[in-house]
This record gives sequence, structure tokens and C-alpha cells, in this order.
Amino acid sequence: MIELPLNIQSCVESFSKLPGVGSKTALRQVMSMTKWDHMDLEMFSNAIEDLKNLSHCQECGVFSEQEVCKICSNFHRTESKIICVVENINDLMAIEKSDDFHGQFHILGGVLNPLAGIGPKELRIDKLVERIKKLDTNSLILAINPSVEGDATCSYIKQLIGDHVHVERIGFGIPIGGSLEFLDPLTIAKALENRKTLE
Amino acid sequence: MIELPLNIQSCVESFSKLPGVGSKTALRQVMSMTKWDHMDLEMFSNAIEDLKNLSHCQECGVFSEQEVCKICSNFHRTESKIICVVENINDLMAIEKSDDFHGQFHILGGVLNPLAGIGPKELRIDKLVERIKKLDTNSLILAINPSVEGDATCSYIKQLIGDHVHVERIGFGIPIGGSLEFLDPLTIAKALENRKTLE
Repeated sequence: MIELPLNIQSCVESFSKLPGVGSKTALRQVMSMTKWDHMDLEMFSNAIEDLKNLSHCQECGVFSEQEVCKICSNFHRTESKIICVVENINDLMAIEKSDDFHGQFHILGGVLNPLAGIGPKELRIDKLVERIKKLDTNSLILAINPSVEGDATCSYIKQLIGDHVHVERIGFGIPIGGSLEFLDPLTIAKALENRKTLE
Repeated sequence: MIELPLNIQSCVESFSKLPGVGSKTALRQVMSMTKWDHMDLEMFSNAIEDLKNLSHCQECGVFSEQEVCKICSNFHRTESKIICVVENINDLMAIEKSDDFHGQFHILGGVLNPLAGIGPKELRIDKLVERIKKLDTNSLILAINPSVEGDATCSYIKQLIGDHVHVERIGFGIPIGGSLEFLDPLTIAKALENRKTLE
């Protein structure tokens, strides 16, 4: 086998750490980059270097160049006394894309997972309690994915603040465009449980 | 929609330039990188910066840290008077992987394509002629992909040096594991044309 130069090998190694990228795809991508001009390479290299300097919104926890992000500082967002709690920024972006929620967000930074050493202190739960008081929140939507850990996290939050605040969890069921035929039994069971009276 | 920080946007933009990476995959990859530690980010950034300093073997044209690569400087490679001509380094690596050719390589850097402004001078054809003399080559294998431009390039090389050197082109036909049922008519025509008497 031909031995590639160290700088190519090192680049392939870094690419292989990305989700969904194996060593073959990584090599293909690095090979295509060997044809880039120097300015593009420099831009890419700098952009990655810059990822070290990401800062977060002090309120909701989303990536933000300002201390307080655009959502948290936007008082025109209707229903702003409602906080939608999500695991991470990707989930937040998915909800924003639906353009159906116009309240405040709060990123937990994960879900409770004692086996992985993630307890309430590792998540942004204290900050959530603080914000509920500050924003005078009366309603919480837990947009947390269905999993054992997600369920446990929801129970924990409900127990912690359920006496003062109305806590709801996002609905589970058949996704739009989905087909009963191909859905797993758990989803179908959830969908049956969450049935709604037609009006 | 939430606006991502500029450093993330810029990183997504660079990723999107890679083959097979759209803006969604790029975003997913950059998001996963936001969880990397600083050392990994620095390594990746430096590796990309380093791609500016790629050097090529003066003989065959493959990426090489030395002036002459390991293949070109290996006199133990049997049949070393045979040169296998390929379009690019990826094709060279594919042939090396088969471990079935142990002569010298020569990378053209593409194929003749007048519409894209690629004539004989843009390719490493002069260098090929020079090497044929130097290595006292008597046999050339053109491992050039089948396409109109590839065919034209082969004809050109044959005309240029066919009087002095035996020029062959790699065989076309049904790939191993392939099925006649799913192959295109052109491949089947080629396979019929290239039939071999059983012994």
C-alpha cells in the first residue's frame, strides 16, 4: 500500500471522528480538499480553530455571541411566560423550524443518566428554577425525547417544581406522514394511549 | 429561525464544500464538533492548514514528503520497466490495493478535455515521455477510466509514443460480483467485445 503524507493522514484521522464518517469517506473528503485553493483551506482551518471560542447565552444556554441570545432578549415573543425545556441546541433548532412555539427556551444540556455520571448538578436545572422565578413562568413544556433517561428527567423536574408550575410534556404518537404498518409497537401503544376525542 | 454564531456558520459553509456533504450534514458535523475538546479542534485545524504544504513526487506525481516517492525509489519493484498511467492519486491507490501491479506509476493529473481547457500541456504527458526514456520502458498500461475524454487521452498517448513502446489499456467488462441483469448495455457490449477463449 502507498503511504500517504502525514498531513493527509492526520486530516483523515480528524475527519473520521465526525458522526457518520468512516475512514473511506474521510479519505475521499481529504482528497477532494487537496484540490482546494489556499484561501479556502485557510478559511476552513480558521473556522475550526474558532470553534474553541464558542460562548453560550447565559439564560437559555444556546450558542450566542451576545451574553443574552436573540430569543431570550426578545420581549415581543408572545407567550414568553412559557418555557420550553429541551435537551440540546439541535432539538431547539428543530422546534424553532416548526415556527409553532413562540415562548422562551431552556437547554438542559442532556438528560439525567446516573450510569454516565450525569446527575441534576451536571444539567442546567438550577438555572431553570432560577429562570422560572425571574420570568414568573406558570407553564413548562418538556420537549424531551422519549427514552428511559428522558422519562426520568421529566419526572425529576415535575417533582421539583410541579407544585408551583403547570408542567406538560410534548405529545407522542404517529408522526405526520407515518404509516401504522411500519411503526414500532411502542409508538403505536403510545399513540393509542394519547388518543383524542374528535369534536 | 435561530441565528447561529458566525464561527459555526463559517464552519458549516466550509464543510458544505466537501463531496457528498449538504448543509444539513455539515450542520450536524459542526454541532458534534462543538463538543470536541480544544486539543482535537486544534489538531483538525492544523491538519487542514497543513494541506497547503502538500508536495508531489517529482517522478510519478503522487503526494510525497520526499522528492521521490517510495514507489519510484523502490528498485526492488519487479517489472519496474512497466509504467501504469493513471488519472489521479485515487485511481493509483485503488490499483495499489489490488496488490496485482508491481511496476512504476505515472499520474497524468486528469484527462484531455478541450472544452474545459485541458490540453496535453496541462497534463503530465511531457514528464511521461521523459520517464519512458529514462526508465527504458517498453510497456505502458493505460489505467484510464472509460469515458469520451479518457478514450481520447489514450488515443493521444498511443499516437505520441506507440511506435517505440507497447501500449495497452486496462480491460473493460463485467465487474467481479456483478450481474448481467443489472449492468448497462455499454458495459455488456464491451464485455462481449472483450470475450476470451477458454483454455
